[in-house]
Amino acid sequence: MKTQIKFVAFVAVSIDGIIAKSNNSGTDWTSKEDWNFFQKSLSKMDAVIVGHNTYKTAQKRLDKRNTVVLTSKINKLKLVGSVTFLNPKYSDILDFLNKKKYKKIAILGGPKVYNFCLQNRMINELFVTIEPYVFSNGVYMFKGDKFMKHKFILESIKKLNKKGTILLKYRYAN
Amino acid sequence: MKTQIKFVAFVAVSIDGIIAKSNNSGTDWTSKEDWNFFQKSLSKMDAVIVGHNTYKTAQKRLDKRNTVVLTSKINKLKLVGSVTFLNPKYSDILDFLNKKKYKKIAILGGPKVYNFCLQNRMINELFVTIEPYVFSNGVYMFKGDKFMKHKFILESIKKLNKKGTILLKYRYAN
Repeated sequence: MKTQIKFVAFVAVSIDGIIAKSNNSGTDWTSKEDWNFFQKSLSKMDAVIVGHNTYKTAQKRLDKRNTVVLTSKINKLKLVGSVTFLNPKYSDILDFLNKKKYKKIAILGGPKVYNFCLQNRMINELFVTIEPYVFSNGVYMFKGDKFMKHKFILESIKKLNKKGTILLKYRYAN
Repeated sequence: MKTQIKFVAFVAVSIDGIIAKSNNSGTDWTSKEDWNFFQKSLSKMDAVIVGHNTYKTAQKRLDKRNTVVLTSKINKLKLVGSVTFLNPKYSDILDFLNKKKYKKIAILGGPKVYNFCLQNRMINELFVTIEPYVFSNGVYMFKGDKFMKHKFILESIKKLNKKGTILLKYRYAN
């Protein structure tokens, strides 16, 4: 299905690719410069897509947005205020987003959602913020079943602060 | 134990922090620009430290260097040409490196070796090459037992080629 929607994924990671300590922990370890960039970016988006764990870690903020929560726990679309719970196994997400006339959509994770969107060609741009830490263990950015090679093209590099938080902007290239 | 040895870790990763498809696969997916940087850097080093899997994937090249292979499969130091097999459980690695009078040592992985060196304050500098791919699944950079927060300071960013391979240089900050 052809769509004019632009999907932009945002992710903040450690040097070793970790986004959180566990599935239920938030991203309170990121820099305020990244937070500012992130909030400014979200203000230009029509809607956000998150997984159920990510939704729970930031429910208060996400309830104020047009939020689509991908979840395997329901069969039918469920609407609560501006939040839609959708099981992509039973509901066509592109169909839903098109009907809503959303043009710019932010993908906010977690790993299964990033991966679902990647597999379904729903990542056009990817913003990666790398904070200067090594965590050694935790939750990784993408969570796929097997090794694949998705090509991206680097569009820009920006240093966000003195300690060395960097922001990379990629475009999907496959 | 105080030491004047400088430890420099090198790692090439995908955007999502993956260094290889499996423990036994090499890094043949990296750019030639990274390879050139890597070889030039190694030429300035006195010795390299690798794990047993990494050793096996590049044995021919590593046999020509002063190579220390960290392995749990032996009890005593074993020397084969310029290669030393060492079990850090039974032999003091800093002691060994000091006796050899090595001043600059490259840490080349895999994940367990990167992590061992990190835990033992044997990473002073960290060069991370990010190739513009997302792999979704594979072997990650560091492999620790638990979430920790090791701070680094970004010293430089360099774009290595047009497609967007970047080279980050970090200094350990804790």
